[in-house]
Parts: sequence; structure tokens; C-alpha cells
Amino acid sequence: MSRADRFLNACRGLPVDTTPIWIMRQAGRYMPEYRAVRAKHSFLEVCHVPELACEVTLQPVDILGVDAAILFSDIMIPLEGMGCEIEFNPGPVFAEPVRTAADVEKLRICEPEADVPFVLDAVRLIRRELGGRVPLIGFSGASFTLAAYMVEGKGSRNFENLKRMMYAAPEVYRALMDKVTETVIRYLNAQIAAGAQAVQVFDTWGGILSPADYAEYVLPYSKRVIAGLDRSVPVIHFVKGCGLLLDHIRTAGGDVLGIDWHIDLADAVARVGQEFGVQGNLDPTVLLGPRDLVVSRAREIVEKGRAAKGHVFNLGHGILPMVPVDNVKALVEAVHEAGAG
Amino acid sequence: MSRADRFLNACRGLPVDTTPIWIMRQAGRYMPEYRAVRAKHSFLEVCHVPELACEVTLQPVDILGVDAAILFSDIMIPLEGMGCEIEFNPGPVFAEPVRTAADVEKLRICEPEADVPFVLDAVRLIRRELGGRVPLIGFSGASFTLAAYMVEGKGSRNFENLKRMMYAAPEVYRALMDKVTETVIRYLNAQIAAGAQAVQVFDTWGGILSPADYAEYVLPYSKRVIAGLDRSVPVIHFVKGCGLLLDHIRTAGGDVLGIDWHIDLADAVARVGQEFGVQGNLDPTVLLGPRDLVVSRAREIVEKGRAAKGHVFNLGHGILPMVPVDNVKALVEAVHEAGAG
Repeated sequence: MSRADRFLNACRGLPVDTTPIWIMRQAGRYMPEYRAVRAKHSFLEVCHVPELACEVTLQPVDILGVDAAILFSDIMIPLEGMGCEIEFNPGPVFAEPVRTAADVEKLRICEPEADVPFVLDAVRLIRRELGGRVPLIGFSGASFTLAAYMVEGKGSRNFENLKRMMYAAPEVYRALMDKVTETVIRYLNAQIAAGAQAVQVFDTWGGILSPADYAEYVLPYSKRVIAGLDRSVPVIHFVKGCGLLLDHIRTAGGDVLGIDWHIDLADAVARVGQEFGVQGNLDPTVLLGPRDLVVSRAREIVEKGRAAKGHVFNLGHGILPMVPVDNVKALVEAVHEAGAG
Repeated sequence: MSRADRFLNACRGLPVDTTPIWIMRQAGRYMPEYRAVRAKHSFLEVCHVPELACEVTLQPVDILGVDAAILFSDIMIPLEGMGCEIEFNPGPVFAEPVRTAADVEKLRICEPEADVPFVLDAVRLIRRELGGRVPLIGFSGASFTLAAYMVEGKGSRNFENLKRMMYAAPEVYRALMDKVTETVIRYLNAQIAAGAQAVQVFDTWGGILSPADYAEYVLPYSKRVIAGLDRSVPVIHFVKGCGLLLDHIRTAGGDVLGIDWHIDLADAVARVGQEFGVQGNLDPTVLLGPRDLVVSRAREIVEKGRAAKGHVFNLGHGILPMVPVDNVKALVEAVHEAGAG
């Protein structure tokens, strides 16, 4: 049993030597080494150039001692492969939001090896450079989250355009979701074929809906994505705002459910049952607090995670840019120490 | 039994002739009559001039047929009375965010009749103009939501400054919450003394915390607010993101709990029990959909509300500017029709 096995074993509900940890957006602005790369290259350039993506992907593995690497990329990348023109300033902005049946018609399904080869080259390069130290996680936005950005054309507070489409033009919405879903399946399977040893489906916006709407408008596509994946690797399904949707989310399948901080992890484990591992669930802002708070919160979550089939420690959402690196190192140590006890 | 009794009876768990409805932000940009007033007067001017506040407060009562009026104002107004300088462009922006013990020290507790007399003049004027047609609801932001704006200085996605203060300088946070809480109590009691027939405590941001943090950093102050109010009128406590916090929120007291759309109303009623009425819980974006969807969703919610001690129909959050007025009229009719059946 070694560091290399922890993460995948926890995903599968197999024995571990301690609780594994990785951190959403672990290669990010809070790290000086990342900022040094970004001082010379734009965000999209780092996504598009395999050597740069590899460099920043490896940084937290070496510096923090986390138990998995996650491909550095952006959830918008497969949408470039569908024909969308996207700028980052700093959030994604679409040149032409997808609003009509004709807009949906124009979209193509992304063929990953042809349309976004740099992602798969990055996966292959990272696997070589990791040399088995820790596993590599691939990822994609979930269909609903990708469709939300495509329809709104950018981030949104209330998602009026998306929801108007859902409610008033459901056939357009479903045609869009069909194309995005097929893209997500191909995109993730291509990452797995290139060497990703686990994949995470990020549904950043699944939690904006009522439970009934989630079941009607999102769940069928999340099910289809997970059913369409090469299941030789574990699948993590993370829905931000999952707490009141877990009864539905369970039915989408997968191996591990991501849990944000709005639900107590003990409560989440009780609802999820022994069919799934869980991943989470520290409030990312706790890392802005004093060291002893970081450590005590980490211990509490590790203890609650023991009741799960398997527990991968993570934040409940992405790490924030102003977090002190020393707090992150203290978190990783605290998780490993508590998990081994 | 008449329109005038519906809302207050439902708040008290007394018999009603049909389900009452009012709509958060019912005097708002979706109404041409409101936009006509705003074409001549700034948002703050409408808040500051009792005749203007009265005019827009009455608009939805007459045009939509809702069963309660709510004072037109902004949750920031009592903070002007604490010495904060706030501009709207269009969201609130504080000239000097509250970040340190010295910043908190400088704040005074608002004396409503001296510091914000126009609010109480508006309450008195609206009561006269309503002439008993429907009751008038007063309101305030909850301590936590007001503190969140004061510390961040504007709206925020992650509330880093607020949460850093909570975690790293809890004595500063608690000193701030003490002053804001005392202000909220005085502000609401002054509205009740001026004639408000119910009050709503709006905790827009209570849902950003984990359940344990909500219990530690928010709940004691919400309890103190509700315990400090003149309880001759019903108190509605609305926490956006309440679904996973209801076990805590219940303990703060009050008469009616506001329920957003992230939890099924039947589920919420089961958790809330027969001690409280409920208010809610239509997703505001449903009003962007077709008429028949608005009507069918309204009926479903009215049916689920029958299990509660009392049910006041409302949206799960404020109405959106681009909603068609005809859909809102259809909603009011559908609720009254379904509730009478």
C-alpha cells in the first residue's frame, strides 16, 4: 500500500493506508509556481500547450503532496471542439450564445483526437512525467453545466436564458443536451484511452434547479454520460448544490459522489449509502482562516468520512486564489495524519 | 373571511378562504408602472421619499391582486442609519467596507425615528392609502446578510472577506453582528410601531455556510432578532438556501419559514412540522415559461402547502425583471383558484 494506490482504492471502496486528498483547482493562482507560468502565458495557452498543461498539473503533486493529479484544462475546452468561439476575460464569454434551434443545428459533436488533440497529448505527457507517483484524473463539465454556459454565453446569476429555453422550448433544450452529452462521452472516453486513471464529471450548475426540475432536465443526461463511459476507471460525479438532490444523483451511477460543504458529510454519507464513495467536503474559505481551524476541520471531515464506502478528501468547490500555500500544506498533512489513525 | 384576512390568517395557521399570495420584489422592474416611476426617480430616491415608496408599494396590490403589500425599500437602508455610505450602481457599493475592529467601533446603532424617519413615514402613509384592503409587511435584512454586505463592501461570489473575519477574527465579527443585530431589532420594531402588520427577516446569504457554521455564526443572532421583536405581528424568517438548515432555522422561532425552490415544499413541510407556517416556493424563472407551466406549477405547490400549518404562496426568491406581467396575473389567479378548491 502506497501513496500511488490511496486515491484509486478509496474510489473503489478498497482498503487505504490513509485518507487520500486532492484539491479542486489545485493547480491555480494561489501557488507562486503557477503564477510564474501564467506571467508568461495566457490561461488558454496553458490549456492548449501540452508541455505547459503538464508543468502546472505536476506542481501541486510535488509541492503539496496531494494523492492525485488532475489534468489542467478548462471545462469549456470541448465546446471549442463543438464549434463555439470562446474568450476568457477572465470568465468564459461566447462570441455567439446558443439560443435557437438553428444555433443548436450548427453545433457539431466534438471528435476529441481531431478537434482537441492537445488535451489528449497533455494526458499522455502527464502520465509519462508522473511515472506512477500518483494517478491522473481527467474531467469534463457535465452536459447541463456546459449547456448553461452555451445558452447564457457567459456566467450568470439566475440563468434566465437557459431556463426560459428549458421551460418554453424544451425541444431545443433537449436537442442541445443530446449533442453536448455525446460530446462529453467521447471527450471523457478519449481521456481514458489516452491514460486518465479516473474521471470527474463536474456539474457546477446542477444545483440551481428544484429537485423535480433536476430529475426532468438534468438527470437523464448525467445517467447517459456515466453509462457511456469506459468503466475500467472510477467515475466521480460532482454536483455543486448536491445536498437536496442526492436521492436523484445516486440514480445516475458512478463510483464516487462529490459533496459540497452545504451538507454535513455524515448526513451525506447516510443518504448516499454504501453503494458509492464520497469526495469532499471542506468549505474552501476555511483555508483563509487560522492554521488550527484548518487542522480541526480536516480532522472532523476525515472522521465523518470513515462511515462511507470510501472517502477522498477534497474541498467542497475549487480552491480560492488568496489562500496561503502553507495552509494547504497543513491541510494535506492533517488529512494524512488523521486518516492513518 | 375576505382578501384582507387571508395573509395574516395563513401566517397564524388560522382558516383562510384561499391560499394567499404575495411576491418577493413585487414592486419591481417587470411592471411598466414601476418603470414609469423609476424613469423619473433614482432607486434611492424612491426609497427615501415616502410618497414615491407608497406609490410603488401599492402598484402590485391594485394591478396583480396580491394579498399583501410589502414596504418598498432596500435592505441596505438601516445601514445608512449606522453611518455607512452606500451607492447603488446598480448593486450596493460601500464607500468604506467594514474590515477591522476600528471600523466596527465607528458604527453606531441605528435609531430608526431619528436616522431613517422616511421609512416609518412611508409605513404610515401606505397604511392610510391601503385603507385595510390588504395588510402591509415590513422587512429588514437579517444580521448576517447585512454584515456580509458591510464586510465585502458589495455583492460577492465567495464572501472571502466575511469568512476570513469569521474564522480569523471572530471577536471583530461578533462585535459587528452585535451592533447589526441591535439595529435590526430597533428597525423592525419601529416599522411595527408605525403600522407594519407583519415583518419579514430576509437572510439572503445564510445559505452560503455549512450547517455547523450556520449554527455557530448566524443562528444566535437570528434568534436574538426574533426574540427582540414586538410579537403582536407575525414574523416571517426567510433564509435563501434554507433546505439543509431547517433543523437549525426552526430553533430561531418566528411564525412562518420562507422556503426557496431548492427543496420540494412537501419535504420542507415535513421537516418544519406543525409549529410554523411556510412561505414559498416557486422557482422565479418558471414565470419566464409558458402560461400553462406557470399554472400547473402553482397548483402543485398549493396542494403541497395544504399539509402545512399555514401556507403563504410566494416565489422562492425575488421576481426577475424580464417576467411578463400577464404570467404574474395568471399565477395569482391560479393560486387563488387552486387554494379555494
